[in-house]
Amino acid sequence: MKYTIALLAGDGIGPEVINEAVKVSNAIAKKFNHEITWTPALTGACAIDAVGVPYPDETHEICMAADAVLFGAIGHPKYDNDPSAPVRPEQGLLLMRKKLGLFANVRPTFTFPSLIDNSPLKRERIEGTDLVFLRELTGGIYFGEKGRRDGGETAFDNCVYTRAEVQRLAKKGFELAMTRTKKLCCVDKANVLETSRLWRETVQAMEKDYPEVTVSYEFVDAVAMRLVQWPNTYDVLITENLFGDILTDEASVISGSMGLMPSASVGEHTSLYEPIHGSYPQATGLNIANPLATVLSAAMMFEDAFGLKEEAEAIRAVVNKSLEQGIVTEDLAAKGATVYKTSDVGDWLVANL
Amino acid sequence: MKYTIALLAGDGIGPEVINEAVKVSNAIAKKFNHEITWTPALTGACAIDAVGVPYPDETHEICMAADAVLFGAIGHPKYDNDPSAPVRPEQGLLLMRKKLGLFANVRPTFTFPSLIDNSPLKRERIEGTDLVFLRELTGGIYFGEKGRRDGGETAFDNCVYTRAEVQRLAKKGFELAMTRTKKLCCVDKANVLETSRLWRETVQAMEKDYPEVTVSYEFVDAVAMRLVQWPNTYDVLITENLFGDILTDEASVISGSMGLMPSASVGEHTSLYEPIHGSYPQATGLNIANPLATVLSAAMMFEDAFGLKEEAEAIRAVVNKSLEQGIVTEDLAAKGATVYKTSDVGDWLVANL
Ligand SMILES: CC(C)[C@H](C(=O)O)[C@@H](O)C(=O)O
Ligand SMILES: CC(C)[C@H](C(=O)O)[C@@H](O)C(=O)O
Repeated sequence: MKYTIALLAGDGIGPEVINEAVKVSNAIAKKFNHEITWTPALTGACAIDAVGVPYPDETHEICMAADAVLFGAIGHPKYDNDPSAPVRPEQGLLLMRKKLGLFANVRPTFTFPSLIDNSPLKRERIEGTDLVFLRELTGGIYFGEKGRRDGGETAFDNCVYTRAEVQRLAKKGFELAMTRTKKLCCVDKANVLETSRLWRETVQAMEKDYPEVTVSYEFVDAVAMRLVQWPNTYDVLITENLFGDILTDEASVISGSMGLMPSASVGEHTSLYEPIHGSYPQATGLNIANPLATVLSAAMMFEDAFGLKEEAEAIRAVVNKSLEQGIVTEDLAAKGATVYKTSDVGDWLVANL
Repeated sequence: MKYTIALLAGDGIGPEVINEAVKVSNAIAKKFNHEITWTPALTGACAIDAVGVPYPDETHEICMAADAVLFGAIGHPKYDNDPSAPVRPEQGLLLMRKKLGLFANVRPTFTFPSLIDNSPLKRERIEGTDLVFLRELTGGIYFGEKGRRDGGETAFDNCVYTRAEVQRLAKKGFELAMTRTKKLCCVDKANVLETSRLWRETVQAMEKDYPEVTVSYEFVDAVAMRLVQWPNTYDVLITENLFGDILTDEASVISGSMGLMPSASVGEHTSLYEPIHGSYPQATGLNIANPLATVLSAAMMFEDAFGLKEEAEAIRAVVNKSLEQGIVTEDLAAKGATVYKTSDVGDWLVANL
C-alpha cells in the first residue's frame, strides 16, 4: 500500500526524535512492502521564525492532503516568559487541532515491566496499570469567548459544550471500552458546572446503546486522587478539554515511562500522532533525547490510521527488545550502563526489526 | 479569654469527628484558662432534611456572630446520583463560602514521619514535603453565570476574575511565603486562558512589594505532574478556584496522611476550619472514623483565628504522641495492632494533653 504522511517535526528535540521514527517507519514499510511519502511542513516556533505564524496555511493543506500526520513537539524558551505575547507556538497547536477537527485526544498510560521502578509510585500501586484517556480537544474553555472588560480589570473565559460535541467524544469512548475491559469512567464536575451536567446526562442517555459497558461517573477532584492511589482500577476515561489537560499529564508520570508514552488525536478529517513529551529545549541538537515515544506514536499510526496491526506490533516488539537489552538513552540508562544516543537507538531498532 | 465558636457538624461522620475536636478544644481551653461557647447550627443534607435548604439563614447568622467556625463534613449518598437535583448539600457549601466571604482556602500538605510508608509514593519522593496551597474560593467558574441555550442542547459556564480578587488572594500568598521559605508558585494556564493571564500579570506586579520572595509561574498541567514527582520542591502555591479543587485533592493523597489533613478558609468576615476528608457515609454512626484531621483543624483555629500558638502546639504535640504510640483508628492501625474507636482516640488525647 501507499501512504502519504505529513511530517511536522516542530521545535527543540522534535526534529531529532521524528528522524528516528521516520527511519523505523521506513524500515517497517520496506519489510511489509508499503510505500511511504513524507511531506515535511513547518509548525510551532520554527514556523513563526520562518513565516510569522505558528500554523501556516500551507502546513494545513499538507496535513489535509495526507493520510496521517506525524508530529514532534513545539515550544521554544523565547516564548516562555510572556504568555500574552500576540504570536505564540501554542496558538498554532490549538489552531491545528481546530482546523483539522481533531476532537479526541487518545492518551494511553501503561507500564513497561522493565521500567516500573522508575515510577515515583510504589510498584504495587502501579502494576497492571493500563488505562486510556479520551480528552475532548476542540471545545470547552480553550475555544470559548475570552477577553477583558472594565478597562482590563476583569477577565473572562467562557466554557461551552454542545450535546453533539459530547456525543461524538463519548461514542469513541464507548467503542474503545468495548475493545477493552468494557469499563468507562466519565470524569466531570457535575456538582458545580452546567457543562458537566450536560456531559453527564448525555453519557447517561448513551448507556442503553452499549449495554455491556459499565459506566461510572466521578468528579474530577476525586479522579485526581485515585489516579495516584489506584491507577490500575481505571480502564477508559472520557473527559472535557481542560480536565483532560490536567489529568492526562498527571497520569503520564505515574507509570515511570513518561518518555515513552505515545498519543493520537483523531477526528473529522485526519489523525495526528505525537509523543506526549515536550520540545525539551535544553537537549536540542545534542542527540540525547529519547525517541521511543515518537517511535511508539508511529506504531499507533500504523495500527489506527492505516489498519496495519502486524506492522504496529513489530514496532512495539522491537521497542520492548531494546528496553530489555538496555539500548536506551540517558534518561533510562541504568547507573554505569552504556548510554546510547538518539540516533543509535533508532539504528538499533532498524537493524533489529 | 472568651470565644464563641459556631459548630457545624454536618452529615455522615461529621458529628462524630466534630465531637472529638470539641472534647480536645474544651480540654485545652480549661488548661489555658479560656472559655469557649459552642453554638451548633445545621448545614448540608441534615439541614435540607430539617428545613429544606442546605445553608439556612439562621446558620449564617450564627457563623457571622461567632469568632470562628468549626466544620465537619457534608454530603449524603441520597444526593449522589443526580447532580442536577434542585437542592443539594454542596450548594450550601458554596453559598456559605460566598456569604461568609471565605475567599482563601488554606490547604497544607505535610508528612508525619510515622505514616510516611502509607503513601502511594516512594519514601524518597515525599520525605520533607511541606507545602501549602492557597486556593481562591469565592470566584472563577464556580460562581460565574452558567446555564443552557438552544433548548438545552448547549451548556455554558463562565469563568470570571477581577484584579482585586486576584490581589487579595495573592497578598495572602506572599505573606504566607514570608513566614516560610519565601518561595511562591503561581499556578495558572496563562498560555490558554485570559483569566490566567490576569492572574499572572497581577502577581507579577506585586513581586516588587515582596522583594525577598522568589516567585515562579507554572502551568496547571505541569504542576499536576510535579506534585507526584517532586512534591517536596514546593512551598506556597496560589491558584484559582477550579485548579485548586483538583490540585489540593491530588496533593492530599501524596503524604499518606490524608485522614489527618486539616484546612482553613479565611476571608472577610470570619474563618472556618475543617478536615479535608468527606462525610464518609459508610462509616456513619460506627465510631470508627479518624478524628485527627478535625482535631488538627481545631489546632489551626486556635493558632490562626485566636492567635493562641501555644495552645495549638499543645494539640499538635498530643496528636503526634498518639500517632507514635499507635492510639489510632482502623485506617492507620498497623496489622494486628489494637484498633481504637473514634471516641477512644479523643479520650486518649484529652487524658494526655
Ligand atoms: C501547550 C498547551 C496549549 C497544550 C494544551 O493545554 O492543550 C498542552 O498542554 C497539551 O496538553 O497538549
Ligand atoms: C463539594 C464541592 C462543591 C467542593 C468544591 O468543589 O469546592 C469540594 O470538592 C471541595 O473541594 O471542598
